[in-house]
Amino acid sequence: MTEPHTEPVVVLERDAEIAVLRLNRPDRLNACTVEMIDTLIGLFDVCDADDTIRAVVVTGTGRAFCAGADLESGGDTFAATADADTGAVPPDSGGRLALRIFRSTKPVIMAINGPAAGVGVTMTLPADVRIASDTAKFGFVFTRRGLVPEACSSWFLPRVVGIATAVEWTIGARMVTASEALSAGLVREVVPASAVRDRAMAIAREMTAGTSPVSVALTRAIMWRMLGAPDPQTAHHAESVAIFERGSSADVTEGVEAFLEKRAPSFTGRVSDGLPEIFG
Amino acid sequence: MTEPHTEPVVVLERDAEIAVLRLNRPDRLNACTVEMIDTLIGLFDVCDADDTIRAVVVTGTGRAFCAGADLESGGDTFAATADADTGAVPPDSGGRLALRIFRSTKPVIMAINGPAAGVGVTMTLPADVRIASDTAKFGFVFTRRGLVPEACSSWFLPRVVGIATAVEWTIGARMVTASEALSAGLVREVVPASAVRDRAMAIAREMTAGTSPVSVALTRAIMWRMLGAPDPQTAHHAESVAIFERGSSADVTEGVEAFLEKRAPSFTGRVSDGLPEIFG
Amino acid sequence: MTEPHTEPVVVLERDAEIAVLRLNRPDRLNACTVEMIDTLIGLFDVCDADDTIRAVVVTGTGRAFCAGADLESGGDTFAATADADTGAVPPDSGGRLALRIFRSTKPVIMAINGPAAGVGVTMTLPADVRIASDTAKFGFVFTRRGLVPEACSSWFLPRVVGIATAVEWTIGARMVTASEALSAGLVREVVPASAVRDRAMAIAREMTAGTSPVSVALTRAIMWRMLGAPDPQTAHHAESVAIFERGSSADVTEGVEAFLEKRAPSFTGRVSDGLPEIFG
Repeated sequence: MTEPHTEPVVVLERDAEIAVLRLNRPDRLNACTVEMIDTLIGLFDVCDADDTIRAVVVTGTGRAFCAGADLESGGDTFAATADADTGAVPPDSGGRLALRIFRSTKPVIMAINGPAAGVGVTMTLPADVRIASDTAKFGFVFTRRGLVPEACSSWFLPRVVGIATAVEWTIGARMVTASEALSAGLVREVVPASAVRDRAMAIAREMTAGTSPVSVALTRAIMWRMLGAPDPQTAHHAESVAIFERGSSADVTEGVEAFLEKRAPSFTGRVSDGLPEIFG
Repeated sequence: MTEPHTEPVVVLERDAEIAVLRLNRPDRLNACTVEMIDTLIGLFDVCDADDTIRAVVVTGTGRAFCAGADLESGGDTFAATADADTGAVPPDSGGRLALRIFRSTKPVIMAINGPAAGVGVTMTLPADVRIASDTAKFGFVFTRRGLVPEACSSWFLPRVVGIATAVEWTIGARMVTASEALSAGLVREVVPASAVRDRAMAIAREMTAGTSPVSVALTRAIMWRMLGAPDPQTAHHAESVAIFERGSSADVTEGVEAFLEKRAPSFTGRVSDGLPEIFG
Repeated sequence: MTEPHTEPVVVLERDAEIAVLRLNRPDRLNACTVEMIDTLIGLFDVCDADDTIRAVVVTGTGRAFCAGADLESGGDTFAATADADTGAVPPDSGGRLALRIFRSTKPVIMAINGPAAGVGVTMTLPADVRIASDTAKFGFVFTRRGLVPEACSSWFLPRVVGIATAVEWTIGARMVTASEALSAGLVREVVPASAVRDRAMAIAREMTAGTSPVSVALTRAIMWRMLGAPDPQTAHHAESVAIFERGSSADVTEGVEAFLEKRAPSFTGRVSDGLPEIFG
């Protein structure tokens, strides 16, 4: 029942090989709704299916990145009903988005143009790079609302900033400044608000130029997956399959020959043709 | 056979909502005994059962935090006997304490007022925050005594300071200065000895003011538990249950309404009433 | 069919209790071959079997540490054949070496005397310490060749430098300077090229002087193994066995008595006599 001419809650823009997903509820500081989550998930599907897209940048319209869950329903915002038949609880919406970003076959860069709270910050954790405006601040505000961290942040946050910082930020729920976020490794760079998007685009181009799209997709998958693996043997098995599969590919012939000939490679392998199964 | 009027080996003190557990064998530099371990474990039980306690600070009497295992039995200090019937080895005492701190439902802040060696430093690793005196130094001295790291430090230390620092400190067993500990992330702040306790108390208050005690207990549990989880899906399941349970609670209604009304929340959920089972 | 008088591809040198393994194909920037991998694995076996060796330093001859896989076969370098009967893929060679270093009973220090690319850098990740020349640079170049990271680096790299840095370096595959490597924790120190080996030798001596060889071997094993353990209870079990076994050893008696007598300990336990089984 959306009105026909409303702006979409997330806008997909293109700049050559980079897709930008722009959170677009500026009058609500881009506060997150289930519609926004579902739209983002659908747009990550679009990006993965399109071989002309090499990387995805996520940013926000206006002065905020994302104010967290939209609280317009007030105290009932988080009330939900278990499945009448099975008793199953509904999956956390932020977690559905985080898992989708985790599975992205393209690198994901967060261009955090302003404040990010609640799911507004936890949704950024499965990204590969976070760039923040100096106007950004970060609030893992859950304990102040009677909630708990979500969007798989209990898995991602300690792995991104270390357990000591993760427990301090999530237990106490104080606002974290951009410079603290930089020191802790939550963000890679802090730049003026007007430069956030351009800097994210530049990094997206740098991270993909001269690389094989299939190799990038496999590298992203294996790095994030092995972060939870029990031992290096598990990585050895997956890597052996990946090296074997890639080792006979046209991409590796091109990659090695281009290197030996000191020229830029031109890779033909396509992510949309499917990736080898390396996790057996 | 303890003499009736001796000072307790650990003193429990209160300052409003903060409990202080003070290691109290200053003539032995608070060297650790099985009695001290068992007393600490019992006092963590007391703190968890008391809803008027919001956080626990651990510190030492006198100039040392804890000199490690008491060596007054000399070379036989660590000799133990396996169970005559089952052959089971006795559980490491430091590990029993570390696992108890791991399970604490209240945030734990270590106020490291001076040198900490052996179990004196490894017992601090499951805490949420460590504040050190500039007179502190840290000795993971095990290999110099013919021992190995204990108190679950082989699990906690690499997760707190990274594997490279963890192996360097534990293999070589040299003394680590307070400033090295700060750089490596072992401690969050270094302050003069006279300020350690006050700073720890201030942090304890900051970390709990305005937060829901049940949310804090769940957040602490999920962050530390998911540190070993194999994948974000595991976190997603636990978080979905937690969000569902909390989402219908009086705490979340109060938390959201207080936020919208720009006032301090007043949470009524009590840890002693039990926490929802979120780890299925 | 190696010519009889060629230099070995890896040279084993001794300096008192420290063994040096020197990659020795300087005309190829020490580019890695299967022969070099197999030689290194054999030399780690030699070092583990020799109780007069306390630590292993790995370095390179000439101006490079290791340029990565030797590409003299060009675009076919990485083509391999699955087992005709079972369909099993061949194990990644870099992974075989990484797992051997992971299992070393002696501390391993990498003296990275110059550039390290591909397996030349990934092979260093299971070491305990990395010291780099200011002429070193590091290239996780796999995606630029159509490959993926190997040598178990998908397990080791995020644990050494954090996931954010790991994905940035491996997806984008740009060259990383020595000072960036220092900031990210990939290397512990950066020194002039002429000082790399001496500094590594000094650290090797510092890390082993005054420590029990059996305790060092157990500490190294437990720290690296528990890095993938699901929970602190797993560490508690292994540590309890280790403390029990060591607690009755001659080493611990000597270690404690030497400490109480303020003298250097003289440990008699030998790694070649076998280590207690602590991982049940």
